[in-house]
Amino acid sequence: MRIYKNIPPQSWPALCERPKLDTANLQFVVDEVFDRVQSQGDKAIKYYSAKFDGFAPEQLRVSQTEWEEGVNQVPEDLKRAIRQAKTNIVTFHKAQIKERISVETSPGVQCWQESRAIQKVGLYIPGGTAPLFSTVLMLAVPAKIAGCEEIILCTPPGKDGSIAAPILYAAQLTGVTQVIKAGGIQAIAGLTYGTESIKKVHKIFGPGNQYVTAAKQKAFSEGTAIDLPAGPSEVLVIADETASPAFVAADLLSQAEHGIDSQVVCLSNSMLQLENINDEIEKQLPALPRSEIARESLKNARFLFSDSRKQSIGFINAYAPEHLIIASKDEAYYLKNIKNAGSVFIGNYTPESAGDYLSGTNHTLPTNGFARSYGSLGLDDFTKKISFQHITPKGLQNIGNSIEIMARAEGLGAHANAVEIRLKDIKS
Amino acid sequence: MRIYKNIPPQSWPALCERPKLDTANLQFVVDEVFDRVQSQGDKAIKYYSAKFDGFAPEQLRVSQTEWEEGVNQVPEDLKRAIRQAKTNIVTFHKAQIKERISVETSPGVQCWQESRAIQKVGLYIPGGTAPLFSTVLMLAVPAKIAGCEEIILCTPPGKDGSIAAPILYAAQLTGVTQVIKAGGIQAIAGLTYGTESIKKVHKIFGPGNQYVTAAKQKAFSEGTAIDLPAGPSEVLVIADETASPAFVAADLLSQAEHGIDSQVVCLSNSMLQLENINDEIEKQLPALPRSEIARESLKNARFLFSDSRKQSIGFINAYAPEHLIIASKDEAYYLKNIKNAGSVFIGNYTPESAGDYLSGTNHTLPTNGFARSYGSLGLDDFTKKISFQHITPKGLQNIGNSIEIMARAEGLGAHANAVEIRLKDIKS
Repeated sequence: MRIYKNIPPQSWPALCERPKLDTANLQFVVDEVFDRVQSQGDKAIKYYSAKFDGFAPEQLRVSQTEWEEGVNQVPEDLKRAIRQAKTNIVTFHKAQIKERISVETSPGVQCWQESRAIQKVGLYIPGGTAPLFSTVLMLAVPAKIAGCEEIILCTPPGKDGSIAAPILYAAQLTGVTQVIKAGGIQAIAGLTYGTESIKKVHKIFGPGNQYVTAAKQKAFSEGTAIDLPAGPSEVLVIADETASPAFVAADLLSQAEHGIDSQVVCLSNSMLQLENINDEIEKQLPALPRSEIARESLKNARFLFSDSRKQSIGFINAYAPEHLIIASKDEAYYLKNIKNAGSVFIGNYTPESAGDYLSGTNHTLPTNGFARSYGSLGLDDFTKKISFQHITPKGLQNIGNSIEIMARAEGLGAHANAVEIRLKDIKS
Repeated sequence: MRIYKNIPPQSWPALCERPKLDTANLQFVVDEVFDRVQSQGDKAIKYYSAKFDGFAPEQLRVSQTEWEEGVNQVPEDLKRAIRQAKTNIVTFHKAQIKERISVETSPGVQCWQESRAIQKVGLYIPGGTAPLFSTVLMLAVPAKIAGCEEIILCTPPGKDGSIAAPILYAAQLTGVTQVIKAGGIQAIAGLTYGTESIKKVHKIFGPGNQYVTAAKQKAFSEGTAIDLPAGPSEVLVIADETASPAFVAADLLSQAEHGIDSQVVCLSNSMLQLENINDEIEKQLPALPRSEIARESLKNARFLFSDSRKQSIGFINAYAPEHLIIASKDEAYYLKNIKNAGSVFIGNYTPESAGDYLSGTNHTLPTNGFARSYGSLGLDDFTKKISFQHITPKGLQNIGNSIEIMARAEGLGAHANAVEIRLKDIKS
């Protein structure tokens, strides 16, 4: 382990660099898949599923029978845990419901703003080694609360053609309207254009590898909104001498096991603490089921020493971590001054995995420095804010003259005319 | 004028098509400009300003003296109008300030969400025929209320090297921190990478032509957030026999004068009304300063007849207009059922130009059907929502078991371990 000591601002750009995700070379294949899905629909989806994923289902839609059978396979204790998670996620996201904001900006000029649901949303759930049913909860719960009418879930089937049972259970529990057996670029293309089996949606949500990420960028350029620019997961832990080295090590490892391109950063004002944390990592690592992935990912890790709170918070804001764990007696200082982070975990008994599954916050978060401009996914992302206004004749008399002056100064005579013609009518 | 009668849903896709904005062929030049700005900074900005805009300022930053001189040139009545507009825009956007949302999702599990400002934002204001100082208000007012620390405004200078005085006035009034004389692709590239004179920002806002639009897409793929996918402006007016044909015609024309690729749509349950509106357009058109642009744009216009409210609202939601004007005795029905629109103007005395300048709502709105997934720009777009959580030992005991079950079912053993190690500690 190399410890970077007293990290001056000029070292931040290099220290803030993430493992690179190169999507540039994928453009050609993404364009090809999108073209073919647009022109051939389901046929193209199946062609690419066979080619890329090794299995092409006859029916892309999961039937009601198949769905029920899957639900029945989930063990009762897992069902109970998923229901507990759902309850908390519902609680936190229902708290985000917004009342209409209404204000009379000038006498007779009433303006208001209302959130209305995005009608059709697509949720992408990756396949692969782990069935990410928790992500179904994180996306479908707010979609349902928002009032989305169509919630289409795409996920690649296993080599036997089936979808992992807990995904089907979570989808049923949260009100997903359709589950589609398709993954990768072709699934995103299907949600973008619509096919015989896949409904065209207005916004696509969900994580994925670099193929899915590149496909979502393409979807955006084709007129379909997307949730967040995706990237490998990351955590920054700030730990002083009050932190438990074992807990910090466990949190760093829970991030590192995600993938070899994950990044973990540990920042402390104590060299001893950094060394203890490192010892704990070595102690806990061998027993983990995904220890090889974690060990590989730890090569991207950064251990940083700084004895200045100001420098530490400066670095945290420069790095803009997806997850920030604060295990420090100075937590109030950091909470006050944090500007850029996705989700913040405070104190020794708040592991990141609580937020990944059960506390109720969303685990869909900005990575790769995007926490500078994006926040955590939430209810708002499944709605859009429409503004409304109603002006009385008196109201128009109050503001009409200024509208005309501004419109004419911008050279837009017809804009001025639309007011003038009304003001004349009011006077007459 | 051709009137489309009784528009069945199968006719909607064709009727919802917008004039196309082709950015595909611009990719090559966008890539070149971005590369060069990244490697050469200001030198490249000046090179492309000379090449594309015919003028390369020696200093890209507007000096304090220059700024003051500009402010002094603005006539008093225009200053007064701009101040009145600012007051209303401040009122409407301050009403959008959000309190922290905090909830105990389970006993001992406290979760909350706070909005914090995006630190550095870039505002793009187009040059060209009209100095769009109103857009300065619409972008800088919410940026300032949100608490953005750096508000960098880029706008191309005229051939004489100067910036339109009302832009400088609006920028001073709203707290813009720097005005940069640069436009087009090179300005967006400068905001994306930073140069000697231009600060790198975290999010870029503002309208522009197809070059600016393509450049903003490139900025997004380079890690800088953007506000909205931009496109030509549009309005849909729904007018029954209670509407004034002269007012409706004036509103349609005020949209049509924006540019030849603008689109206006008029929907009515009265053929007579549609004919009267058309007569009024012909009557008002010749007197307008931008009549040639408006006449050209009217070639994209759609006049639609439908005697069914249900069909009408169905079409409106399918079209998803940027601006929707409701001049109908059925306004309550339409307000209740509108799902997709950017900004809605209600009644005979609420012209769209009120919202463009003075009522207080934002005029930065989703075009080209993006109102299905995007809303009006607002305070939220200048902040991001960070989630926080604090869990007590008791709280972790309440949810810990379920976290472990879910983590193991997803194959993420280290996630389970981060909980287990703490629960053991609590027990001991």
